[in-house]
Amino acid sequence: MFISQSGVRLSSCLKYFRHFNKSIPVRTMSSHMSKFTLPPRFEASVYSVWVEFIQLSLDHKPLNLGQGFPDYESAPAHVAKGLADACTGENKLLNQYTRGFGHPRLVQAIGKLYSGLINRSLNPNSEVLVTVGAYEALFCAINGVLHPGDEVIIIEPFFDCYAPMTSAAGGVPVYIPLRDTKPNATGAKSSDDFKLDPQELESKFSSKTKLIILNTPHNPLGKVFDRSELELIANLCKKYNVICISDEVYEWQVYKPKEHIRICTLPDMFERTITIGSAGKTFSMTGWKLGWAYGPAALMRNLQIVHQNCIYTSNTPTQEAVARSFETEINKMTSAGSQQECYFYSISDELRPKREILAEALTKAGMIPVIPDGGYFMLADWTQLKPLLKLDSESDKYQDFKFAKWMTKNVKLQGIPPSAFYSDENKNLGENLIRYCFFKKDETLREASKILQNWTRQQNKL
Amino acid sequence: MFISQSGVRLSSCLKYFRHFNKSIPVRTMSSHMSKFTLPPRFEASVYSVWVEFIQLSLDHKPLNLGQGFPDYESAPAHVAKGLADACTGENKLLNQYTRGFGHPRLVQAIGKLYSGLINRSLNPNSEVLVTVGAYEALFCAINGVLHPGDEVIIIEPFFDCYAPMTSAAGGVPVYIPLRDTKPNATGAKSSDDFKLDPQELESKFSSKTKLIILNTPHNPLGKVFDRSELELIANLCKKYNVICISDEVYEWQVYKPKEHIRICTLPDMFERTITIGSAGKTFSMTGWKLGWAYGPAALMRNLQIVHQNCIYTSNTPTQEAVARSFETEINKMTSAGSQQECYFYSISDELRPKREILAEALTKAGMIPVIPDGGYFMLADWTQLKPLLKLDSESDKYQDFKFAKWMTKNVKLQGIPPSAFYSDENKNLGENLIRYCFFKKDETLREASKILQNWTRQQNKL
Repeated sequence: MFISQSGVRLSSCLKYFRHFNKSIPVRTMSSHMSKFTLPPRFEASVYSVWVEFIQLSLDHKPLNLGQGFPDYESAPAHVAKGLADACTGENKLLNQYTRGFGHPRLVQAIGKLYSGLINRSLNPNSEVLVTVGAYEALFCAINGVLHPGDEVIIIEPFFDCYAPMTSAAGGVPVYIPLRDTKPNATGAKSSDDFKLDPQELESKFSSKTKLIILNTPHNPLGKVFDRSELELIANLCKKYNVICISDEVYEWQVYKPKEHIRICTLPDMFERTITIGSAGKTFSMTGWKLGWAYGPAALMRNLQIVHQNCIYTSNTPTQEAVARSFETEINKMTSAGSQQECYFYSISDELRPKREILAEALTKAGMIPVIPDGGYFMLADWTQLKPLLKLDSESDKYQDFKFAKWMTKNVKLQGIPPSAFYSDENKNLGENLIRYCFFKKDETLREASKILQNWTRQQNKL
Repeated sequence: MFISQSGVRLSSCLKYFRHFNKSIPVRTMSSHMSKFTLPPRFEASVYSVWVEFIQLSLDHKPLNLGQGFPDYESAPAHVAKGLADACTGENKLLNQYTRGFGHPRLVQAIGKLYSGLINRSLNPNSEVLVTVGAYEALFCAINGVLHPGDEVIIIEPFFDCYAPMTSAAGGVPVYIPLRDTKPNATGAKSSDDFKLDPQELESKFSSKTKLIILNTPHNPLGKVFDRSELELIANLCKKYNVICISDEVYEWQVYKPKEHIRICTLPDMFERTITIGSAGKTFSMTGWKLGWAYGPAALMRNLQIVHQNCIYTSNTPTQEAVARSFETEINKMTSAGSQQECYFYSISDELRPKREILAEALTKAGMIPVIPDGGYFMLADWTQLKPLLKLDSESDKYQDFKFAKWMTKNVKLQGIPPSAFYSDENKNLGENLIRYCFFKKDETLREASKILQNWTRQQNKL
C-alpha cells in the first residue's frame, strides 16, 4: 500500500541494490529479526554513490578528484579562528544549546546578507531556518510540503539526494533532463549548451505537481541559469501553483560574465520559493555541515516543524563562527575599496585558473570538457579514450561507472560517474561523461594532468 | 488514509494547537497557498514545550532552571581546546567532509569505550553510527524500523520527542506510565518510588509492537532502572520479538549506590537493542549536538540509511574533538590512580551537592522533591503551595502549565511543566509536578533558593 503511494517500485530498488557497496556487511538477520526490515520508503536511499566511491578510493588510493571539497585551506583565516574563539572564549554558553531554528546572531547575519541580495527585508526569526548543511534544509523543505503521492519535478542531472528524499517523504519524482543543444559541436563544450526544452518542461507539470527543485549554479553541470531560463520555470510555477526549492549552494562560485540570479527575486516568486544556502560552500568548510533555508514565513513554518522533529537544533559554536564570518565578509562587501577582498567575490577568482588547468589537462588527454559557468565541478566526455580502455573487466551496468572504476584502479585518477545523477530512464545521458572536482591545490591538478599524460603516452606507444 | 495509518488523530492535533506558541506568526497563507499545508504525519510535532518556554523566558527574564544545560563550563579544559585545535590545526582536512556514518577516529573511540563497557567487541564501522545529537539517533532508530501502523511502547513520562517522531514515521505510540508506588508517603520522595507494573506493561505488548523506548537514567524522573526492572523489559522484548531503543544519554550522571546497567548486556539483548548516547551529555557540551547509536550491524544498517537520507554526515571538527576527548578520558579511566580524575566519574561527584542544594531549597519552600538517582533534573510536587498561587490568571488547560507560567511571570523562577512529557490520556499524572534542572553554578541554585524563600516569606506575611 505504502509502496505504491510513495512511488518506490521494487524493480527500481533492485537496480539500486545492484550497486550495493560490497564492503558493507550484507544484511544477515536471523529469522526472528526478519521483522525489522527497512521501511520501503527508504529503499531508494540504500545506494549512495559517495559511500561506494569513497570506499573505492580507500581501497585503491588514486588521486581523488571525486568529492567536492578543497584539499587546502581556501577560506580567510578568520573563519576557522572564529570557531576556535567561539568554543574557548569567555562566553561559555556558546558550547551549550542555542535557539532551535537558528542561533540568534546567525539568523541576524543571514537575514542581513540576503535582505540586501534579494532587495526585500527578511524576518530573521520567521523567514530563516538554520540546518545541518544544505542537505538537511533540502530534507526539511521536501518533507515539510509533500503529502503522499505529490509529484516533484527534478531537473537532470541532479544532486543525488533529491530523488531518495522525495521517495522517503512519500512523493513521486518526475524527471526532466537538461538537453545538450549542441550535440555535434567539436572541441570544448559549455555548460550553457545544456538547456531545458520549454514544451517538455511544461508537459511535466500537472495538478499533482507540488514542487520543482532548481539547482543554480548547477552540480554537476556547472550551468548558471540565466534570467530567461528562470522566467520559464517561474511562470510555470505560478501557472500550476507549484513551489520552487532553489538549491543555490554554489551562489558565490560563478565565473564572469555569468551572474547568479536568485529565482526568488523574480516577480511574485518570493512567496513560492524556498532558497537553500550552505556555509560549507560559502566558506569552503564542507565539514562544518551548516546550511540554511529562507523563504516566506508560512512555508518556513513547515520546515521548522520538520527540523524540530529530526534535529531540533544545530551545533552552537559552528553557528557562532559562521555568524562572525558573515559579519566580517559583509563588512568587506559593503565597504568601498575592500570589495575585492571579500571572499564571496575572491573565491571565483581563485577557482577560475583551476578550471583552466583542469580543462587543459582533460583536453590534452583526449577528453572533451564541458566548461562550467559556476561551481567547482567539470564534466567531460571520455568516449574518445575508448581504444585505451578495457572496460569489460568491470561488471557495472553503466559505461560511466565502468570508466570511473577502471580509471581509479588502473590509472589511479578518480572521478564520479554522472549517471548516478540521472533517473533510471535517463542514465544513458550521463554514460559518456565523468565528473571531476577542480577545487584542489594547483599542484594536485597538475599531478592529475601528469597522470593522464603519462598514461595516454604509454598507451599510444603500445 | 495516511492519517489513520500514522495514528495521528485530528482531535489530538487540535489539543497540540491549543498550546501553540503565540509569539510565532500564525500561518496566514493566501488562498492559492493553502495547497502547501503541513503533511498530517508532522501535526504531532507542531507543539514544542521548549519553543514555548524559551520564549517565555526571553519575555519575562526569570532565573531559568528549565532547560538541561550547565550555566558554567563543567568539562575539563581539554574538551573545548580539542575543538579549537581541530579546526585550526595543521590537518586542514579536519574542516572538510569526513566519513558519513562517523569520522574514523571517533567511531574507533566510541567502539573502544563501549566494547569495554558492554564486554563485547563492537565493530566501529558497522555497529556504530555518529549522529547530530542523540536526537538524530532517536530519529534514525525510529524511522529505520517503523512500517506504517507499527506500535511503539513509550514509558511515561518521556522525553517529549519520542511520540511525535513515532507519529511522523507512521507508527502508533502506546503509552505505559511509571506509577508512584508510595503515593501516601510523607517527606521527600525517591525516583525509585516510580515503577512499571509488570501486568500493565505486558498488556501493552502485542504482535503489532515493534519497539519499546527505554530511557535510563530517566528524564525527567531521574530514575535509574535496576537489573530486575531491565530483565522485565528484556524478557518481554524477547517473548514478543520487539526491539529496545535504549536512550542512555545520562549514563555518567548516576548517584551511588545506584549503578547504570546497559540493557544490551542482558542475555540475548545485544541483537535487539539500539543504545543511544550523547557527547553533549557526556562532556556537558549540549551545544555540540553530537551523539551516537550502537547495536547489531543488521539493525544499524537501517539507521545508516535514514541518516544518509536526512543528514549524510556530521560536523567534522566537533567529531575530531569528541574523539580526542574520549581518548583522553578513556586513558584516565583505564590508568591506575587516575580514575577519580576521569570526567565520566567526577561529573556525578560534581552534581551530587547541587542535587542536595536544590532539594533543600524546594523542601524549605514547601514543595516535595523527588530525589533523582541519575541525570540532572528534579521533579517536585508543588501542590502544597496552592494557597500562595493565583493560577486562575493563566489560561492553560493543565495545572502544571499554569503553575510553571505563573511562577515564571510572578516569582521569576522557571521550570518545565512535566505534563508535556505525558500522553493526553495521562497528563493528570504530571499536573502536580514541576521539573527543575540542577546542573547550574552553586550560586545560581542558591539564588533560586533565595527567590523561593523571599516569595514564600512575603506571601505568608500577607
